[in-house]
Amino acid sequence: MSKKISDNSMIIIFGATGNLAKRKLIPAFYHLYAKEVARENVPIVCIARKLITKDQFAALLNPEEFIPEANQKTLSEFLGQVYYYPMDLQKDTAYSDFAEFISKVDDTHNCKGRRIFYLALPPSLFEPAVGILQSSNLLNGEGWKRVVFEKPFGYDLASARELNKCIYSVFKEEEIYRIDHYLGKEAVQNILALRFANSIFEEVWDNRFIDHVQITVAEKIGIETRGAYYDRAGAIRDMVQNHLLQVLSLAAMESPGSLNADDIRDEKVRVLRALEKIRPEDVVVGQYGQGTIDGEKVLPYRKERLVSPGSETETYAALKVSINNKRWKRVPFYLRTGKRLVASYAEIDLVLKDVSYRLFPKQEPGGLPNVITIRIQPDEGVAISFNAKHPGYEMKLHPATMEFCRLCQFDINSPEAYETLLYEIMSGDQTLFTRWDGVEASWRYMEPVLRIVKNRKKEFPNYAAGTFGPEEAERLIKRDGREWCMPRKIENASYSSLKSDTRPLIFGRGSEP
Amino acid sequence: MSKKISDNSMIIIFGATGNLAKRKLIPAFYHLYAKEVARENVPIVCIARKLITKDQFAALLNPEEFIPEANQKTLSEFLGQVYYYPMDLQKDTAYSDFAEFISKVDDTHNCKGRRIFYLALPPSLFEPAVGILQSSNLLNGEGWKRVVFEKPFGYDLASARELNKCIYSVFKEEEIYRIDHYLGKEAVQNILALRFANSIFEEVWDNRFIDHVQITVAEKIGIETRGAYYDRAGAIRDMVQNHLLQVLSLAAMESPGSLNADDIRDEKVRVLRALEKIRPEDVVVGQYGQGTIDGEKVLPYRKERLVSPGSETETYAALKVSINNKRWKRVPFYLRTGKRLVASYAEIDLVLKDVSYRLFPKQEPGGLPNVITIRIQPDEGVAISFNAKHPGYEMKLHPATMEFCRLCQFDINSPEAYETLLYEIMSGDQTLFTRWDGVEASWRYMEPVLRIVKNRKKEFPNYAAGTFGPEEAERLIKRDGREWCMPRKIENASYSSLKSDTRPLIFGRGSEP
Repeated sequence: MSKKISDNSMIIIFGATGNLAKRKLIPAFYHLYAKEVARENVPIVCIARKLITKDQFAALLNPEEFIPEANQKTLSEFLGQVYYYPMDLQKDTAYSDFAEFISKVDDTHNCKGRRIFYLALPPSLFEPAVGILQSSNLLNGEGWKRVVFEKPFGYDLASARELNKCIYSVFKEEEIYRIDHYLGKEAVQNILALRFANSIFEEVWDNRFIDHVQITVAEKIGIETRGAYYDRAGAIRDMVQNHLLQVLSLAAMESPGSLNADDIRDEKVRVLRALEKIRPEDVVVGQYGQGTIDGEKVLPYRKERLVSPGSETETYAALKVSINNKRWKRVPFYLRTGKRLVASYAEIDLVLKDVSYRLFPKQEPGGLPNVITIRIQPDEGVAISFNAKHPGYEMKLHPATMEFCRLCQFDINSPEAYETLLYEIMSGDQTLFTRWDGVEASWRYMEPVLRIVKNRKKEFPNYAAGTFGPEEAERLIKRDGREWCMPRKIENASYSSLKSDTRPLIFGRGSEP
Repeated sequence: MSKKISDNSMIIIFGATGNLAKRKLIPAFYHLYAKEVARENVPIVCIARKLITKDQFAALLNPEEFIPEANQKTLSEFLGQVYYYPMDLQKDTAYSDFAEFISKVDDTHNCKGRRIFYLALPPSLFEPAVGILQSSNLLNGEGWKRVVFEKPFGYDLASARELNKCIYSVFKEEEIYRIDHYLGKEAVQNILALRFANSIFEEVWDNRFIDHVQITVAEKIGIETRGAYYDRAGAIRDMVQNHLLQVLSLAAMESPGSLNADDIRDEKVRVLRALEKIRPEDVVVGQYGQGTIDGEKVLPYRKERLVSPGSETETYAALKVSINNKRWKRVPFYLRTGKRLVASYAEIDLVLKDVSYRLFPKQEPGGLPNVITIRIQPDEGVAISFNAKHPGYEMKLHPATMEFCRLCQFDINSPEAYETLLYEIMSGDQTLFTRWDGVEASWRYMEPVLRIVKNRKKEFPNYAAGTFGPEEAERLIKRDGREWCMPRKIENASYSSLKSDTRPLIFGRGSEP
C-alpha cells in the first residue's frame, strides 16, 4: 500500500493559490506524506502571483478547512517542505532568480534534477508557463522531467490540437500526464479488475449476452462558483468528452495485451475510434429551470452567478452511442449527465438480454432483465439485479439484488482520486492518464455532437431542478423499448414519489463527482 | 401469498402423538390457519394409540413449546377443528366406528369425501394403516384421496420397491405425496428461479464455464434421540440418498418444458439416471469420535444413546459424483454431509473455471476462481465470490463477495418448509414431492455406494467432533487439484484457527437442516 516513492523529485505547482491546489493537491500531498509515501524526498514548490511570504501562503492554503483530519505535528512537518515562490507568469522575467531558487531546493532535497511541473492553470497560461520553464533552463540537465495538467484539454478539436502543440514543443508524450480525475477513482480502476479477472463477468461481456449499457453521472449540485467557465463549456465539454467517454472506453475495451500503460491505452483509443458518427436524433440536451433540491428552492441556471441571462448552454446531455466493432455491434451505450438532478451518483449499468428460453411467465414485478451495476459514487461497489423466487407458497418471481460494497468489505479506505494520481505521476506510470491520441479521438467524436447541439433550436429551461432531467431523455431510451435504470435507495426517499419502479431505488448522498 | 385453499378437505394424521406431528405438522397447520389459508374448511383428524380425550390430546401437543408465537385466541379456534381418534393400528378392528367418525367430521365441514391421509409412521406400520383405510372403506366414494408419507422410503432398492408396492396397491402415483422436506425450503425452490429466470446464471451453467460443483450439508448436532434409527441407517441413507441427491438434481437438471410438476420431475429423474456408477476411490465415510462443539465436550458416536458400542455406521460421507450428459461431462459434483461438524450450514457452490485469458498475475490472495454459492441454511441467499481491485495505489486483486440475503431483502418471512409442503398437498401440486421413478433411480445409484461402504475395512472413529470431518475427505478433492469451499464467517470464529483460507469465512448458526 504505502510503498515509499524511490526517486527523490521536486513538485513545482503553477497556480498554487487556486482552488485545485488548495482543495485537492495540497491535501493529497499531505496524505501521501502522512502515509510515508512521499516525505522529505519530494519537496513541493508552489508558484502563484501573490507577493506573500511562505507563512502567509501556508495560512492561505487553509488546511483547517481542507485537511480537517490532519495531525498538527505531521502537518507542520509536511509544510516544512512546501516552498512558495511568487511569480507573475505573464510579466516576470527574473528567470535566473527562479532557476537559482529551484536549484537550491533541489540541492537541499537531493532531487538530482527530477522535476514534476504541475500546471494548475487555465489553458491560456500554459504557453507563458512553458516559456518560463524554457527561459529558466529548468527542462534540461540530468533527471527526468514530467508535466501534469488538467482538463479542459481544449474547447474543441482545433484548440485541443493547438494546446497539445504547445506542450509537445517542449515535452515528449511519455513525459506528459493529462489528468482526468475520474481515472483515479478506485471504482473506475476496478472496472479492469472486474472485467478481466472474473470469468462470470468476462464471459458475458459482449453482444451475445448484453442488451445495452447505460453510463450515468448525475449531480445534485449546480455550477457553484464556476459560472464563467461553465457557461462557455456546458455539460458535453465539461463531462461527456472526458469523464463519460473515459468510463465508456474502460467498460467497452478489448482485453489488453498486458497491464502496461500503453497496452491499456491502445485498447481504450481503439474503442473511441470505433464510435459511430452520432445521428441528431440520438442527442438530447437540457438546461435546468428553478426547482427544489432536498427541500430547498434553487435558482434556475440562467440566474446563476456569472451566467448569461439568456444562456443556451446545456446543463444536461443524454446520448445514444454505438460502437462499430464485433463485441458491441447492436449494443447501444446510453450516456447521460446533468446538474441539479434529483440525486448524485455515477454508475455503469450493463443490462443483460432476456433469458434465451422463458420458463417463467413474463409478469410484473418478476422477470426483469439482469443488470450488472458498477457503482462509481457515492458508494463504490458492484451489484447484480436478478430474479429470485418470491417468498411464499407459489412459484413467483421477485426482483432481488446482490451487492458488493467496497467500503463494507475492505478495512482500508480507498485513497482519494488525486492521491492515487499523484502517486502514479511520481512513480512514472501513465496508465491512469489520457494519451494524446485518446484525447484527439474523443474530440473527433464530439465535434459533430457539438455541432448538432449548437444548431438545434433550444427551448430552455426544459427541466426543473430536482428532477431526472428533460422529458426528451426519457423518450430517447423508451423509443427503443428500454428504460433508464433507477439508482438504489440508500436514504429516506421522496424519490419514489417522483418515479415508481419495481426495482429497489438508491438515493445519492450528494457528494460531488 | 395467503390465498385460501378452495377445496374443503379432511386431513387424517396417523401417528399424531409422534415428534413429527408435534414439532412440524401441527405448528404448520396452525400457521396456515392463522394466515387464513386453511380454516374451518380443512379439519384435522389425529390418530394415535393413546386412549385419551381430545383435550388431553391438545395438551399433549404442547403448543406452548412448539408454537410459542401463537395467538391464544387463534390457537383455541384452530384446536376447535382438530379432532382426536384413538386407535391401535395393529389390533383395532372397529372399522365401522372409525368410518362413522370420519363421516361425521366430513359432514360437519362439508369435505365431500376429499381426504389427505398423512402417514407420520415408521414404514413397518404403513401396511396396517393402509389395511385400516381399506377395511373402513375410506378410500372409495366421491372426492379425491391423497396419501402423504416421509422418508425413509425404504432401506435399500429392494425394500423401497416393497414399500412402494404396498402403497401402489391402493393409491395411484398422482395421489401420492412423498415428502423430502428439503424440497419445501425456500432456498431449494429458489434454485429453479435462479437458474431459469436469470441470463447471468443460465448462460454460465454448464461445463464450458463451470469447473466443478460442491454440495454440502454440515451439521453441528449429533444424532440426539434418534440413535435406534440412525445406527441402522447412517449418513448415506439418512442424507445423501434423499436430500443431497434432490439438491443435486435441481442444480443439474435441464430446463423443463414447463413449470408443471411432471415436466420438472421428468428432468430431475433424467439427471439421476445419468449419474455414472461410482468408483470405490470416490467414496469417503467417517464416524465422529469425542471432541468439542461450541466449547463443550461431546461424546463419541459409539457412546451415544441407543448406538451399538462397536458401531460401524457412518456419520459422515463425501462422494465424487459424475453426470454423464452433455452439460456436465468433466464437471465433478463433490457431495459431503456429516454430523458433529464444526458448523451447521447447507449450500451449493458452483466453482467457475479460471478466466480464459489471464491478464492479472496468478497470485495470492487475488486471482481465485469465481464461485456462485446458493445458501440453503442457516441464512438463505445467493453469493458470488469474485476478484476486485485491492484498494490502494497499485493494481492488485483481492477476493470479494457479492451477497443476496433473502431475509434482509424481503419483508415477508419465508414460510417454514412444512407449511409450504402442506399447502402444496392441499392444492394438489406434486412439484415438490418425489415421484417413484426418482426414488427408484436414487436407490439404484446408491446401491453400489452402500456396497462399497459395507465391504470397506473401517477405522472408526476417524474424525473428532467439532472438526471438518475425516482427512480422507480433504484428500478426495485435493487429489483433483481442488479445495472444499469454506463457509462465510457470520459470527465470532475459532473457525479460522482450524483452517486458514483467503476467502471470507462463514460460521453456521447451528440450526438443524
